Amino acid sequence: MNREQTFAHLERTLDDIARRDAGIGAFVALHDRTGLQVELDRALAGGGALGGLPVAVKDIFDTAHLPTAYGSALFNGHRPRFDAAMVQAIRRAGGVVVGKSSSTEFAFLHPAATRNPRSAGHTPGGSSAGSAAAVAAGLVPLAVGTQTGGSVIRPASYCGVAGFKPSFAVLPTAGLKPFSWSLDTVGLFAPTVAELARGAQAIAGQPWADQAGLGTGASAASNGGALRFGFVDRFPWGETTPSAAQALNQGRSALQAAGATMHDVALPGWMAEVFHAHDAVQGWEAARALADEYEFHADALSPVLRDYLASARAVSDAAYHQAQQSTGVGRRTALTLFDSVDVLVTPSAPDEPPPLSAASTGSSSFNRAWTLLGLPCLNVAGGTGVKGLPMGLQVIAPPRRDALCLRAGDVLERALAASR
Amino acid sequence: MNREQTFAHLERTLDDIARRDAGIGAFVALHDRTGLQVELDRALAGGGALGGLPVAVKDIFDTAHLPTAYGSALFNGHRPRFDAAMVQAIRRAGGVVVGKSSSTEFAFLHPAATRNPRSAGHTPGGSSAGSAAAVAAGLVPLAVGTQTGGSVIRPASYCGVAGFKPSFAVLPTAGLKPFSWSLDTVGLFAPTVAELARGAQAIAGQPWADQAGLGTGASAASNGGALRFGFVDRFPWGETTPSAAQALNQGRSALQAAGATMHDVALPGWMAEVFHAHDAVQGWEAARALADEYEFHADALSPVLRDYLASARAVSDAAYHQAQQSTGVGRRTALTLFDSVDVLVTPSAPDEPPPLSAASTGSSSFNRAWTLLGLPCLNVAGGTGVKGLPMGLQVIAPPRRDALCLRAGDVLERALAASR
Repeated sequence: MNREQTFAHLERTLDDIARRDAGIGAFVALHDRTGLQVELDRALAGGGALGGLPVAVKDIFDTAHLPTAYGSALFNGHRPRFDAAMVQAIRRAGGVVVGKSSSTEFAFLHPAATRNPRSAGHTPGGSSAGSAAAVAAGLVPLAVGTQTGGSVIRPASYCGVAGFKPSFAVLPTAGLKPFSWSLDTVGLFAPTVAELARGAQAIAGQPWADQAGLGTGASAASNGGALRFGFVDRFPWGETTPSAAQALNQGRSALQAAGATMHDVALPGWMAEVFHAHDAVQGWEAARALADEYEFHADALSPVLRDYLASARAVSDAAYHQAQQSTGVGRRTALTLFDSVDVLVTPSAPDEPPPLSAASTGSSSFNRAWTLLGLPCLNVAGGTGVKGLPMGLQVIAPPRRDALCLRAGDVLERALAASR
Repeated sequence: MNREQTFAHLERTLDDIARRDAGIGAFVALHDRTGLQVELDRALAGGGALGGLPVAVKDIFDTAHLPTAYGSALFNGHRPRFDAAMVQAIRRAGGVVVGKSSSTEFAFLHPAATRNPRSAGHTPGGSSAGSAAAVAAGLVPLAVGTQTGGSVIRPASYCGVAGFKPSFAVLPTAGLKPFSWSLDTVGLFAPTVAELARGAQAIAGQPWADQAGLGTGASAASNGGALRFGFVDRFPWGETTPSAAQALNQGRSALQAAGATMHDVALPGWMAEVFHAHDAVQGWEAARALADEYEFHADALSPVLRDYLASARAVSDAAYHQAQQSTGVGRRTALTLFDSVDVLVTPSAPDEPPPLSAASTGSSSFNRAWTLLGLPCLNVAGGTGVKGLPMGLQVIAPPRRDALCLRAGDVLERALAASR
């Protein structure tokens, strides 16, 4: 497409959002046509691979030319002086930021005013609610989120789209509102794993999509052999629900039909310690990251966040120290999780999406230990829970094996699609 | 002291700064008496151990009630909406932020307008120039800095004060202007190691000073035996200058007289790789953290920063990926550096402070590998170079052994003082 065609496409994207987003609530701020012209010129100037692709950015990132509220009334009308590093990275990749997608309040659990396009009356999950919903509704083909517990993988599972949390600190965090600096990780959403891999490659500048050999099937070479999927169905952090078990079975059957190699994997005992360490690390850091907001503006916070910060302040310094020790041990030991398999497969969330009436965007129990370990995680859509709502599978890869994560997810996604 | 006495003391601090700082240039913003009252009430409300102690905060941290320019004209008049988490942590510890201390431009190498109180005509170092100078001049007993390469340890060495870079991510980074998110580490300055340990304990909420057994001498129990100091005098990143060699010899002689145990330690070959990895990690991340400033406001940047960012943008994504791999290996292997000693001792900087006329605040070559590894590092003052100017020794402790670092530094500091 030439510049005029690309701009016309962006204009249609804006029109589409204007027409359809009132019923979804994925966006909290949009560029006007003038702003879009400026963004497109910047995006095309660098010659990046995305060639003017429209992108939504979660409103937890600073943007100098769009309002930035971090999902909180405390920052109504806030306009940061400079763009977050991620916004610049999108431009350099050739992407056009068309608007800001909704975030839960400071990326915690208090729901944003966003609906799940794939299951009416249910939450899209959070905290990256708007990004997951915008992609699920087909408003944009690529969106940016963040994950401190499960804020990318969970909404991707609920909304039935591909969601990727790369290795810790590969996508830039400078210019996002911190919640827990040891955990906050930037991630991406796209309709399919293949589209996600191409977007992630362009923005992260890592040859992930090229290395992933997308679309080449389950038995193509990985480390010289067929991909070995390690299925996990028991977890130290809770029971497997019927919906999660059903999705795991759908994944197994689909991969079996595709000729993939599968193993049952039991998580080692230390994973329970890692899971609990996440609580202490997140709590201790969030109490400090949002200290000013809590101490001087508590009335402007939601009850769920206020209560959380009150309990987070009770996390002792000793508990934090111990949790960081456990984190260090876990990160040094993480490679052993993959002694006999290439990737792990778990449910992406405990269950199908909760109803919109719930007070929270759901639990991150299936995500937070992997976030703490900094491992690449991918939600693969295509499974369903017992009510027939989206129920994703999470692919987890060894440290810094992001391309392998995307490759395995692509295989699983195609297998699930073929099995329907 | 009661509240009135504490306030009178703070007023004298402000008067002292007003009278003496014109010749030093350590401060870029100060509270007036009204602001000081507010800060004192907040500090005393929490009942923290610092009991109203005046503290200077580097102008790389957001402050809602004092201007925040990050050392750059681009942020003239900038007033963030909320305080950085570190500012709140100081309040909770009972400290009173009296003002903002100078930072080099975005905490890089372009000098701030600050002089070295301990050696006229020489740079105080950077990037935490004002914090080191304010403590060296006796204007405040505690100051906050940050280190991405050597921005705490180096200025502490040049100014002849104690400077501490704790384990990575223990002191909160939320609300500081990022330069390299994998490396930016918050640190502290104080006149002596003992004062520094008490300040660090109160702010970090870790029992470092209590555990350190300050002032109990070189032979008191550490891990059941006497402290073993590992002296390093060959480095893969450069020659040892006559000043550095002289300071190492002063340290050896002083510890010998104090009855400490010393060993010669050779750094393993992989430390060279870690050293080079720092370049790639910092460059790749800084290019992204300051992308907006560079791409749209390059004329407002100093030549040294502009040239650096231009070269940093040439760091390939593959080089960054490789450097993060090396970092991971280094962090997993760091413990082996301490197989036969409790702490390492190296020069804190290549040499004595360069003259003020130099275009840069000096090299971080002796600091950056340890910053990348996330190890606790402490500058111990008391040594001198060949011109008689301050030349510090750096004590480096195993992962998360911050109390041991402070304890060993206290022993070395007392030994150096006794030997003069």
